[in-house]
Amino acid sequence: MTTQLNIKKPSQSRTIMNEMVLPNDTNTLQNLMGGRLLHFMDIAAAIAAQKHSGKTVVTASVDSVSFGKSIKLGDVVTLQAEVSRSFNTSMEVYIKVWAENIPTGESFLSNEAYYTFVALDRNGSPVKAPALEPETEEEVKRYDGALRRRQLRLILAGKMKPDEATELKALFA
Amino acid sequence: MTTQLNIKKPSQSRTIMNEMVLPNDTNTLQNLMGGRLLHFMDIAAAIAAQKHSGKTVVTASVDSVSFGKSIKLGDVVTLQAEVSRSFNTSMEVYIKVWAENIPTGESFLSNEAYYTFVALDRNGSPVKAPALEPETEEEVKRYDGALRRRQLRLILAGKMKPDEATELKALFA
Amino acid sequence: MTTQLNIKKPSQSRTIMNEMVLPNDTNTLQNLMGGRLLHFMDIAAAIAAQKHSGKTVVTASVDSVSFGKSIKLGDVVTLQAEVSRSFNTSMEVYIKVWAENIPTGESFLSNEAYYTFVALDRNGSPVKAPALEPETEEEVKRYDGALRRRQLRLILAGKMKPDEATELKALFA
Amino acid sequence: MTTQLNIKKPSQSRTIMNEMVLPNDTNTLQNLMGGRLLHFMDIAAAIAAQKHSGKTVVTASVDSVSFGKSIKLGDVVTLQAEVSRSFNTSMEVYIKVWAENIPTGESFLSNEAYYTFVALDRNGSPVKAPALEPETEEEVKRYDGALRRRQLRLILAGKMKPDEATELKALFA
Amino acid sequence: MTTQLNIKKPSQSRTIMNEMVLPNDTNTLQNLMGGRLLHFMDIAAAIAAQKHSGKTVVTASVDSVSFGKSIKLGDVVTLQAEVSRSFNTSMEVYIKVWAENIPTGESFLSNEAYYTFVALDRNGSPVKAPALEPETEEEVKRYDGALRRRQLRLILAGKMKPDEATELKALFA
Amino acid sequence: MTTQLNIKKPSQSRTIMNEMVLPNDTNTLQNLMGGRLLHFMDIAAAIAAQKHSGKTVVTASVDSVSFGKSIKLGDVVTLQAEVSRSFNTSMEVYIKVWAENIPTGESFLSNEAYYTFVALDRNGSPVKAPALEPETEEEVKRYDGALRRRQLRLILAGKMKPDEATELKALFA
Repeated sequence: MTTQLNIKKPSQSRTIMNEMVLPNDTNTLQNLMGGRLLHFMDIAAAIAAQKHSGKTVVTASVDSVSFGKSIKLGDVVTLQAEVSRSFNTSMEVYIKVWAENIPTGESFLSNEAYYTFVALDRNGSPVKAPALEPETEEEVKRYDGALRRRQLRLILAGKMKPDEATELKALFA
Repeated sequence: MTTQLNIKKPSQSRTIMNEMVLPNDTNTLQNLMGGRLLHFMDIAAAIAAQKHSGKTVVTASVDSVSFGKSIKLGDVVTLQAEVSRSFNTSMEVYIKVWAENIPTGESFLSNEAYYTFVALDRNGSPVKAPALEPETEEEVKRYDGALRRRQLRLILAGKMKPDEATELKALFA
Repeated sequence: MTTQLNIKKPSQSRTIMNEMVLPNDTNTLQNLMGGRLLHFMDIAAAIAAQKHSGKTVVTASVDSVSFGKSIKLGDVVTLQAEVSRSFNTSMEVYIKVWAENIPTGESFLSNEAYYTFVALDRNGSPVKAPALEPETEEEVKRYDGALRRRQLRLILAGKMKPDEATELKALFA
Repeated sequence: MTTQLNIKKPSQSRTIMNEMVLPNDTNTLQNLMGGRLLHFMDIAAAIAAQKHSGKTVVTASVDSVSFGKSIKLGDVVTLQAEVSRSFNTSMEVYIKVWAENIPTGESFLSNEAYYTFVALDRNGSPVKAPALEPETEEEVKRYDGALRRRQLRLILAGKMKPDEATELKALFA
Repeated sequence: MTTQLNIKKPSQSRTIMNEMVLPNDTNTLQNLMGGRLLHFMDIAAAIAAQKHSGKTVVTASVDSVSFGKSIKLGDVVTLQAEVSRSFNTSMEVYIKVWAENIPTGESFLSNEAYYTFVALDRNGSPVKAPALEPETEEEVKRYDGALRRRQLRLILAGKMKPDEATELKALFA
Repeated sequence: MTTQLNIKKPSQSRTIMNEMVLPNDTNTLQNLMGGRLLHFMDIAAAIAAQKHSGKTVVTASVDSVSFGKSIKLGDVVTLQAEVSRSFNTSMEVYIKVWAENIPTGESFLSNEAYYTFVALDRNGSPVKAPALEPETEEEVKRYDGALRRRQLRLILAGKMKPDEATELKALFA
């Protein structure tokens, strides 16, 4: 059945990317620059959205990202991305980033983020993306939270009034 | 007086950057990739934060950014960044991005975003940044909104409970 | 009147570009390489020529450039470019470059240069560029000097005999 | 026991890397250039060798690699690398490369290769790498074949006479 | 005669390339990364194959390459490539690499390698490449050895049985 | 004798560099950008100046360069650089650039230029460069013209009055 084909699991779009931090990715303190990491994350997340939709995709938004402990020159950065929910033509992708300093053996979770993408056909027009069926408990939790994050995105982009964001309002009640 | 020296105006950190969209910045539809634009924005914003603080800076966070109309290969991207408020060792930078297609004459506002940076001394330890004194009406409005955005950042990073975000709660009341 | 539309002021093409000196831009002494700076200057000047002509442009020549004090890794380079005169299909662009070391607060004028560009239509054929109307005293001075610089370019490219360069000869008389 | 710590399994160094083929990675037919792929493979393999040894590593050699079907602009390249055997201070890494064209859904195994690396201490001197203990049938087969590949490398580098390559000679008998 | 035109000498495809080792080409010990050198070698060899065939070319394979003494940041790398034999639509290219540290005056032969390329027409289909006529003693020796290297490549790619490799078998007899 | 060691011939610094024009080197008409070519020329010339002086060098100036016929994506650019005269701590380098479109077989001389460099010791202070002894007729002609070009550079940099430029004045007499 066609409908069956249009449902995918998070594991089907799971994308792993490793990058070594090179000199040009760093500032004068030899820390990975935040903008370069956002660029890596966008590429990993776009590959996941392409795997899920089977289409070319464009970035629609990135949610708030905070950077903690600095990642250094020569560190290995590991990014894992997977679609966390889809809404008609758009897909929300969850990305997790770890950094590892091989000689010292130190390793830590650096970031988590949500990017959204729109699937496009050959003429650049938006097309429907497959629905997502979460499997693990964590995937279900992220799937459920997606509505709330979407309301926040719409408010921040000035496309929804805070008053109408039912899911979000509940948080502040 | 030293205190006087430690107050700066938004115009003192204002930074303008022009970039031409080159092939490697684009996807197969010849649109500027979102991650590359986030990288440009980080560099422009970092220069503004350096001008304000007179220090090396590292990116602490980027607020939610949404991408609208696509920017094409060969377009000229103009970024304007300036510090919108400072909080002890951190500075919030406001960035505005325009895109222009010279041969067609088409030009549009592409994005607005807020990045935050931390000022560091030579050993990489955080140091106090000068306070910001907004001048124009728009600058004052952004200065006042900074508290609300900061609360949202702290909640999203799990460092504040929604319940304690007084400024933000008022929005949803 | 169409003719009126074809006259532009230097301020209409003024382009400001900031670049941070990254590791790959430097030699083993961590100085910005001259060729990389010439590349930055070409991009800033090309954007100015595009703004003036509303066309795609190609570099026709660069006048003699001398490099003084070295610019270091991590410095912020500011380039300002604007059309200084147009000659039928070609435009002369004046570029000024400053370098700033944020942590030391040191800042200096690094270079001045003139690049010339030709405006092209979609088939790559040269097209007429708008005339330039200088406004400030400095702009008028540069506009007047453009004839002399043009003669020097033609002589150096072997397209004019020193004897015919009336403006230039006057200098050595 | 220290000895126990110095034995690692292939899965402990397994490294997955995804890359999107960008314009600058391709030739005028928009095919990924072989040298660029060799560069990607070297980075993936180096990360695997670093994970195995916990040291900085340098490439000692690459075995013969053949390129079949061409990989195109916009394709997603997936590389999987893992240590296949270690010899005192050197490690042989096995790399497998797949290419996928998302919009057409076409995917194929592009290459297999062996790179060798040497583990180095902070002064750049070679240090002993942990032994490898293969687990799966395929890993055992690669482990056993490593002796033969090593003899071939030594012969090709002029460091062993064909006559002395017992393992290899058997192949041609 | 057409046939005459289709014979070329090694000197007609000889290509020399100099590269300065920049920060992004190096690892944390400031050594040129092996994969980056393989990338340089591929470009130099591809230019030689293009000169020989007068066609666009794609990399078909690279033979085993070993890396000895490390090349450092700031060193000048010199690559010399020339076609060593052609087989119908494919060409074997011989590449030699030297490294030089200018301030210390130290210079050494770093690598030798063989890459093979296929000549393509505008539609991407393989086309016949000119035959090669070696001149010097060294060129003749490389021309003769090409058959043996080709057998090794075919065996390693699983396209020939060791038993059928007459030229190669002789080595191990 | 030491003095003898400090005299070098142009052929001793001769440097040849081949570059393939990649997508990121071109504008939207797929022409090599002028600034990118100036960057290539700077690297080739710097290597020649390093070979002549045996020292690290920095670019001191570039003389007027004019660009004629456009160089296209995929073309092979060949640069040849050699020291044309030395003046105490500075060296003038002559660079010639050819472009070749392999599939069409079209090839042309694209540019000629003069760059000057200063030799530096490990502390970044200028050091004496060896004298140059021209051999061929063309080398002698360039050696003799160097005085005139130097006067022009000094005048253009505002370090000499036109009136004092004896060599140059003769041209306009």
